Amino acid sequence: MSTLKNDRFLRALLKEPVDTTPIWVMRQAGRYLPEYRASRAKAGSFMDLCTNPDLACEVTMQPLERYDLDAAILFSDILTIPDAMGLGLYFAEGEGPRFERPVRSMAEIKKLGVPDPEQELRYVTDAVRTIRKELDGRVPLIGFSGSPWTLATYMVEGGSSKDFGKVKGMLYSDPKAMHMLLDKLAESVTSYLNAQIAAGAQAVMIFDTWGGTLTQQTYQDFSLAYMEKIVSGLTREADGRKVPVTLFTKGGAQWLEKMAMTGCDALGLDWTINLDEAKARVGDQVALQGNMDPCVLYSTPEVIRETVKGIIDRFGADSGHVFNLGHGIHQHIDPENVKVLVDAVHEFGQRG
Amino acid sequence: MSTLKNDRFLRALLKEPVDTTPIWVMRQAGRYLPEYRASRAKAGSFMDLCTNPDLACEVTMQPLERYDLDAAILFSDILTIPDAMGLGLYFAEGEGPRFERPVRSMAEIKKLGVPDPEQELRYVTDAVRTIRKELDGRVPLIGFSGSPWTLATYMVEGGSSKDFGKVKGMLYSDPKAMHMLLDKLAESVTSYLNAQIAAGAQAVMIFDTWGGTLTQQTYQDFSLAYMEKIVSGLTREADGRKVPVTLFTKGGAQWLEKMAMTGCDALGLDWTINLDEAKARVGDQVALQGNMDPCVLYSTPEVIRETVKGIIDRFGADSGHVFNLGHGIHQHIDPENVKVLVDAVHEFGQRG
Repeated sequence: MSTLKNDRFLRALLKEPVDTTPIWVMRQAGRYLPEYRASRAKAGSFMDLCTNPDLACEVTMQPLERYDLDAAILFSDILTIPDAMGLGLYFAEGEGPRFERPVRSMAEIKKLGVPDPEQELRYVTDAVRTIRKELDGRVPLIGFSGSPWTLATYMVEGGSSKDFGKVKGMLYSDPKAMHMLLDKLAESVTSYLNAQIAAGAQAVMIFDTWGGTLTQQTYQDFSLAYMEKIVSGLTREADGRKVPVTLFTKGGAQWLEKMAMTGCDALGLDWTINLDEAKARVGDQVALQGNMDPCVLYSTPEVIRETVKGIIDRFGADSGHVFNLGHGIHQHIDPENVKVLVDAVHEFGQRG
Repeated sequence: MSTLKNDRFLRALLKEPVDTTPIWVMRQAGRYLPEYRASRAKAGSFMDLCTNPDLACEVTMQPLERYDLDAAILFSDILTIPDAMGLGLYFAEGEGPRFERPVRSMAEIKKLGVPDPEQELRYVTDAVRTIRKELDGRVPLIGFSGSPWTLATYMVEGGSSKDFGKVKGMLYSDPKAMHMLLDKLAESVTSYLNAQIAAGAQAVMIFDTWGGTLTQQTYQDFSLAYMEKIVSGLTREADGRKVPVTLFTKGGAQWLEKMAMTGCDALGLDWTINLDEAKARVGDQVALQGNMDPCVLYSTPEVIRETVKGIIDRFGADSGHVFNLGHGIHQHIDPENVKVLVDAVHEFGQRG
């Protein structure tokens, strides 16, 4: 493997000194970019794009050509694991992800197998290998997975949900079934992320998009406990470097102290918490990633720059901050504003 | 007006001694009740039900016939004000509320008038008068409104939203326009709630369903500041009793201390925060209302009773707690489980 030319992102996640604040953007390879929309049209469906390693590599590289980003992230979907378990993932136009065969009972959960990532999810590890080769040490590559709880919400609901009645109904009425499902998912996520690391991912992130819909106790028992289990089962070194792990629970700002105790290296933050308050609460335990409201990008270069400066000032001059949005970039953002964002982070993040 | 036979709800909101914990349920008059579905079918559309004072009274009373609830809540919708402003509210089947004429610019905002509640919203105050007569002092009647920010989200987006790109885009790119809109809405909500109080509402609640999508600073400036303005403009006494005001920001658990300083009497809580922690944070300043996860009602009587007991024990024996769900009751809940809930609250809430 070639030497990493820009390791600012990995250094910040490990709280090592950096020259300036690193930045990447959740969903940086996405629909706001015309070149992405062209690749997507060429591929056919969204899943055709995910399952073709060359096209997945192509779209992963696109934002790096436009912007001075400090990390690449594997282009994939969080629902690859349930799909590999046989639930039949498809995307209804304008309706988001759906499963042909949702899981609603203990009997159905018992039948689920743990996918072998180098078999059923080979297209993902192939994409990681292809992207690493293409990156040639330019910036690190992030691998990722959905959290067990987040995957379970889609598997039980059969798709996106507003009120999570089915999955939380199962949690409250049949907690044993829910724990069996989450156990299988935690095992699957662990081997999936380890396969991504073996294939070349230099950092990994677990997206707990729906953990914030739980109570404090059910969050601890049904989401955080399984993320902790995954963290403890991950390969933490590759190419002679530590592989940092980031946990991100959207809407989880109330539980940062608990998340920081899982053994992870960093926490992703949504925009509802001020970065200085988050930092005070987690202390030196973890680095922080975030946390600009994606909607600021609808605004002007002046407002974007001012907001970036405010966030960086809140964190302060020590290392341990990776700039990002608090959630994925929206489809209708002007790509020019992303350039303003990335350059502002590097400008205002400079260490004296 | 006849004497109030059960004033436990009003007493708890004012932290006066109670014999047991009072309870009402958000959306207690709703689709989970077969008798509601029958009234709804008779009325025609959802808005036909809201705009007919006799039918609105009929459905308001239905849950009181089934359950030993300690308050009635006016049957209406939060979007009556923007509808009265001329935006053309309608409900697309399965898609939630929509506006025919969303508001997207300063020019459109300037044209908006502040509705006279006894004119354009007469059907609401008529419903309040009809319900008060029908209640005949059985339990107090709650009036309500959406918060300015929450109303603005629907008015700018044109309906429900996932990422609030349009309304938050306006907030960041044209804050003056957003403040003008919120100013008009705060004025409208104040006179609307005062008209409900004059017509007979004995407590009022402001639903800030989407305040939790903001950053701390924008929450303070664009949602909380306007709720505070409303609180300070409300009639606070009727029938020789104080009219308590409750603020509820869904997803706002991080900001309880700030909400408690607005001069309101109580805060509504979603289920993401433990009641003892919320109580420790707001101290004696306000009463608390909540906060069971609505999904617990999908479970068994045993689990419901155990959860109720846990929540009541967390609050402790002093007054100042109104039991409720952390959000509206879901459509597919078994009505029998609501009886279990209500009776459990009165049983476990008994003061020695």
